Amino acid sequence: MAIELKGLTKRSENYSQWYNELVVKADLAESSAVRGCMVIKPYGYAIWEKMQQQLDKMFKETGVQNAYFPLLIPKSYLCREAEHVEGFAKECAVVTHYRLKNAPDGNGVIVDPDARLEEELIVRPTSETIIWGTYKNWIHSYRDLPLLVNQWANVMRWEMRTRLFLRTAEFLWQEGHCAHATAEESEQRTVLMINTYADFAEKYMAMPVIKGVKSANERFAGAINTYTIEAMMQDGKALQAGTSHNLGQNFAKAFDVTFVNKENKPEYVWANSWGVSTRLMGALIMTHSDDNGLVLPPHLAPIQVVIVPIYKNAEQLAKISETVNPIVEELTRLGISVKYDDSENKRPGFKFADYELKGVPVRLAIGARDIENGTVEVMRRDTLEKQVEPLQGIVPFVASLLEEIQENIYQKALKQRESMTRTVETYDEFKEEIEKGGFILAHWDGTPETEDKIKEETKATIRCIPLDGDTTPGKCMVTGRPSARRVLFARNY
Amino acid sequence: MAIELKGLTKRSENYSQWYNELVVKADLAESSAVRGCMVIKPYGYAIWEKMQQQLDKMFKETGVQNAYFPLLIPKSYLCREAEHVEGFAKECAVVTHYRLKNAPDGNGVIVDPDARLEEELIVRPTSETIIWGTYKNWIHSYRDLPLLVNQWANVMRWEMRTRLFLRTAEFLWQEGHCAHATAEESEQRTVLMINTYADFAEKYMAMPVIKGVKSANERFAGAINTYTIEAMMQDGKALQAGTSHNLGQNFAKAFDVTFVNKENKPEYVWANSWGVSTRLMGALIMTHSDDNGLVLPPHLAPIQVVIVPIYKNAEQLAKISETVNPIVEELTRLGISVKYDDSENKRPGFKFADYELKGVPVRLAIGARDIENGTVEVMRRDTLEKQVEPLQGIVPFVASLLEEIQENIYQKALKQRESMTRTVETYDEFKEEIEKGGFILAHWDGTPETEDKIKEETKATIRCIPLDGDTTPGKCMVTGRPSARRVLFARNY
Repeated sequence: MAIELKGLTKRSENYSQWYNELVVKADLAESSAVRGCMVIKPYGYAIWEKMQQQLDKMFKETGVQNAYFPLLIPKSYLCREAEHVEGFAKECAVVTHYRLKNAPDGNGVIVDPDARLEEELIVRPTSETIIWGTYKNWIHSYRDLPLLVNQWANVMRWEMRTRLFLRTAEFLWQEGHCAHATAEESEQRTVLMINTYADFAEKYMAMPVIKGVKSANERFAGAINTYTIEAMMQDGKALQAGTSHNLGQNFAKAFDVTFVNKENKPEYVWANSWGVSTRLMGALIMTHSDDNGLVLPPHLAPIQVVIVPIYKNAEQLAKISETVNPIVEELTRLGISVKYDDSENKRPGFKFADYELKGVPVRLAIGARDIENGTVEVMRRDTLEKQVEPLQGIVPFVASLLEEIQENIYQKALKQRESMTRTVETYDEFKEEIEKGGFILAHWDGTPETEDKIKEETKATIRCIPLDGDTTPGKCMVTGRPSARRVLFARNY
Repeated sequence: MAIELKGLTKRSENYSQWYNELVVKADLAESSAVRGCMVIKPYGYAIWEKMQQQLDKMFKETGVQNAYFPLLIPKSYLCREAEHVEGFAKECAVVTHYRLKNAPDGNGVIVDPDARLEEELIVRPTSETIIWGTYKNWIHSYRDLPLLVNQWANVMRWEMRTRLFLRTAEFLWQEGHCAHATAEESEQRTVLMINTYADFAEKYMAMPVIKGVKSANERFAGAINTYTIEAMMQDGKALQAGTSHNLGQNFAKAFDVTFVNKENKPEYVWANSWGVSTRLMGALIMTHSDDNGLVLPPHLAPIQVVIVPIYKNAEQLAKISETVNPIVEELTRLGISVKYDDSENKRPGFKFADYELKGVPVRLAIGARDIENGTVEVMRRDTLEKQVEPLQGIVPFVASLLEEIQENIYQKALKQRESMTRTVETYDEFKEEIEKGGFILAHWDGTPETEDKIKEETKATIRCIPLDGDTTPGKCMVTGRPSARRVLFARNY
């Protein structure tokens, strides 16, 4: 796991290459021997674990419980909900056999032709079908509702063009699948979860998002309504960071899941599903990082503070450690994860560059002279600013600096988004502006045809119909027909 | 999710049926539409999550980091380590295609014959091969070692006869894969992890285990040595609860993973792997539970204390709640998970039976008379004993009762094991005793042939060569040849 510190492409030179290199150089993930599948390395996985733990806590606070459903789904299940299979599940890994055997030529193993499955099984691309197939046995009466279940799992979609974290054949995610007695309650839960995602994105990832509703074209296959949170990356492209789908009674009807309501009448169950994935890792990296490497929000950084001793001999190191150890203890007691890197086989300059690359929010460097002066050098990763601070009171100083960094990178990302969000009136203007990147708010007549035309001609899609913001009606920039309100356009990941 | 409280088969009638029914009735898991794959229901998953969290903490305390490797493994990888493929990976789910398409007759979807993979992929039965294929790029120098990595994942083995938790086609587990610079260090880690598993089993699951080494016959395919922890179920059968494998340099050689050692010479890396799975859920259930349902150790119970109010009207309930709420708060502050079940649509008797079935360690019942008297009825699940206690001081009383229950069920299981462990001298005696169930310590000549003969004739296997206990040499009960020490025999799950 040697660290390659040099030669990170600059964002201004080639943003896409900068991202690809950074993911690998910062030890987050790498491609595997299996096409399109990634290995998430320990440092990358530690960030994902922090995301998971926080999200899991937030879900549970809303009453959600975790469960686990099978990885493999019978092929026939996918066809039950007509739109679902049409829009969704064709590119997937198909299990056809259940046994290997020794090759007759003695060379390795072959698939045993006698071990063919009667019905092929699909590695889950998402679990609505298997879960609603199961809920049929769990739900009988309104007393069994609501059923608020989440699953942390791996899923697979046979993507042709893959990029680490952003689009991989296998990825990790959570998928919530709730069942309700009324349409209103299900809609409330759908909105609650998109709000939960937005809170998580803003408070933990320090990533501002726009909440909105997808157009029919961009809706989840089988949903009656899809809510989304959309973030802007530093190159001005949009990234869909989480979705929450109101499924109406579609899956309940497809899998015949009814309940006896309070009036003692059978009724189909109301459903929603919602998910975020390891794609959030890509969003996190692209929102904050710079030409020196990762910039991590303190609330998700596996190491929040690193302390590097600068010494010439064992005696000096011993003195420094004497001062540093109580600081480490105090920070730890405050719940701050701190690493004292007194390893001897790397020079301080190498350590500095490495922790910068890894995005550690705060670095303290302390030498023999500092001990004499009662000072310490503090470097904050977001601005790369250094300052000398008194050792006295350094613990509360660091604690408050971490919060300051969290807020600062959020505000920086918000300003960047605001500076790259424009309102346009005409389609010509739109075509010109979309080339510059960023978000464009424009009027649209609400038809899939117009949306398709815009996408074809400009590669921009409707990211969402924002929940907040200007709701003044107007005229579609393409057709001149009436538009209920401006919608958000962008090119996207 | 209606609860079926009645009709749990008694252990003495049919132990196996008792287990199957209990798993379903206590809402832990159920079979799915996919042959051999289970659905882990929220209550069962909550127990597994507690196990996961504790194990994860214990692993990290020894320096282990988590990572994630691909679900699918190229078929050719399995053949690289000759013993591994021979002993292991034949019965597995094989992915041969990556696309479905609409059926020509318009009826559902079929596998697209044009989307055949060049090389088939296997759903991982275990990940040594893909991980050692990856480590080749991670390890170059002794400075990269040790590499201490764990993965929480789903795996799949196409078992023909499955039982919920004990043996399922898909199961959840963790697999640790460590790389070391020396044979000694790798052996130390292998032993450290079996000790970690034993600690977890005894302190959290309250399940006594015997640590030992597997005979060559029972060793993991590709290992030079396998350590195991073996537990005894209430029916006297053994259950292998966790294993830790010293892999020597076998996988490093198969995947050509070398490092430059301190003497600047290339050397193959030393490896070990270790794992426990959702099988532990089966072990937990079968160690402690009784004819009334689950008995959970307080350290792993999702609900440690349930409080049931007994009331006739809203006024009484309000008074009881006034007393109970501060108790709930205090217990919660101590980190004790407590549920105040004041739901109105179930009678107290139903609640009592339900929480007994679910194995909640302590139940408090409190009525209007109790409020007057300043008392509360306490029921402990392990002995089903009830006692009336003063409300004053109930919180510390409950806290210490939970620890007492934890210790009591451990001691009970230990006594049961001791009473069912015998020493025999002759093979005739062995054949007679093995029919009664339990563990038998006997002399064995150390050959696979003798072991095979015993297995064939008695269905008993060598569970392990215990690390502790009597090491007096003797003569093999079957062949009369010299035996280094007694080994542990049992029939097993």
